[in-house]
Amino acid sequence: MRVTLCDVGPRDGLQNEPSTLLPAIRAELCGRLAVAGLPLVEAVSFVRDDLVPAMAGAEEVASALPQVEGTQYAGLVLNERGYDRLRASGLKAVHLSFGATASFQDRNAGSALEEGVARATRIAERARADGLSVATIISCAFGCPYEGRVDPGVVYDLAGRAATFSEVVVLADTIGVAVPSEVRALVTRVSQTLRVPTGVHLHDTRGTAIASVLAAIEAGAMRIEASVGGIGGCPFAPGAQGNVATEDVVYALEREGIDTGVDLDELVATARWLSERLGRSLPGRVTRAGSWP
Amino acid sequence: MRVTLCDVGPRDGLQNEPSTLLPAIRAELCGRLAVAGLPLVEAVSFVRDDLVPAMAGAEEVASALPQVEGTQYAGLVLNERGYDRLRASGLKAVHLSFGATASFQDRNAGSALEEGVARATRIAERARADGLSVATIISCAFGCPYEGRVDPGVVYDLAGRAATFSEVVVLADTIGVAVPSEVRALVTRVSQTLRVPTGVHLHDTRGTAIASVLAAIEAGAMRIEASVGGIGGCPFAPGAQGNVATEDVVYALEREGIDTGVDLDELVATARWLSERLGRSLPGRVTRAGSWP
Repeated sequence: MRVTLCDVGPRDGLQNEPSTLLPAIRAELCGRLAVAGLPLVEAVSFVRDDLVPAMAGAEEVASALPQVEGTQYAGLVLNERGYDRLRASGLKAVHLSFGATASFQDRNAGSALEEGVARATRIAERARADGLSVATIISCAFGCPYEGRVDPGVVYDLAGRAATFSEVVVLADTIGVAVPSEVRALVTRVSQTLRVPTGVHLHDTRGTAIASVLAAIEAGAMRIEASVGGIGGCPFAPGAQGNVATEDVVYALEREGIDTGVDLDELVATARWLSERLGRSLPGRVTRAGSWP
Repeated sequence: MRVTLCDVGPRDGLQNEPSTLLPAIRAELCGRLAVAGLPLVEAVSFVRDDLVPAMAGAEEVASALPQVEGTQYAGLVLNERGYDRLRASGLKAVHLSFGATASFQDRNAGSALEEGVARATRIAERARADGLSVATIISCAFGCPYEGRVDPGVVYDLAGRAATFSEVVVLADTIGVAVPSEVRALVTRVSQTLRVPTGVHLHDTRGTAIASVLAAIEAGAMRIEASVGGIGGCPFAPGAQGNVATEDVVYALEREGIDTGVDLDELVATARWLSERLGRSLPGRVTRAGSWP
């Protein structure tokens, strides 16, 4: 069995770090992840530099990305202007996103939920016409910082709409509350009933992420999103840790006999290099403890 | 379904902390854990004060333990002199321990493996004659810092011997390397074939502990050892995190519908109180992030 790991550290991770890295360093990070064997790296977000300074210079990052066989770089796009920029940058993989709740979509994107879905649909149509691949990430699929529990039926319906225009639908636990039984149930339903390749994007805010990763894979997930070093934090829980660390996912999967294609030693070396760039100790546990045996 | 959580923070946790707490504070910690609903607290270790200063004053701790209905306090005992002290202290629950490998037993206890088992057997006979309960913890049951991988057959045989003189046999992942499939397999074998109540003691050194806790419970484990705040570190991996945090275990279990009897808010409050006493931010994730929903 093989799953595709997508490292979202250069985008979701760095966007939530206190330090900002220059575009050249961010491109180098992406290249190091590629050399470590990550098949997919979310490298940039095409947003306004003044609104999200951590993601400033997306074109500069994109043009400096080292091409490594077996690795694809993706860019997150939130609107059509962002898509124009991604298209011009030469990237071939588009990540789209909308929230599972009206409150989150309103506060995060300033739009109604229906408008978020409609926008993603329009962008995806353009991307597919342009020959690019599309993955859609549904935020707050397991819980919302404003609405609390989220009805899995609502997420399932949204996943069904995303499945009509995406190669992959990713269920994101944006606030890090999911437990394995919930992840197993929703991934099973989405992947088996909708028959769409399904991924999960998990934050280890409350310690359940590795358990949920394993449950997701058992349920048929074929993409796991994680962040080198566990960078990122959780904007809704100050002081809490962020995306599940890619090296912790690789350790758990490889020890469970699930091939990731990632060189764990290279990945840990990259996390240590990144720790020096960010000037802080990172939460990824395998980087702190070392691999085993 | 109900599992018994045993908080080992006052013993295993504090023994591996850089700061030392006074006996009165350690007794207060135990009492707070009892009030939070922990059914079992490993309160002290009866070792030589000069060898393990963090555990100095075990009698003082034991005599100051607040009696709370529903909570039992246990003491760790490594030799007969320690047992004499425990017996005199009035504690009713004895924790014994030996390693699963000769190298660990030699370096940790200065004795041969067979000698460790024989000593535990002798102490357990005395304890049972004295009407005390006995749990035996097998260290390095999933990996050894000196020998690497550990043969599950060897651990199973040791568990079989421990089962002859213990009410509970606890399989300890002392260095934090276990993954769920290994935990599931060994707990299944020990609990079903030996028909002895089985527990696990897990360290979250590489991020797999919560997944392994859930696997252990599915496999029939009825005791989970954890440490409030995740205190303790791992003496074999400097910089790494330690015992799985009790609050993270409670969060995962309660959200999965497994009753622990623990009041999570009280437990988180205790972890925050302890964080102030120790003068450092503790790794327990639910304490940092807060519970949910």
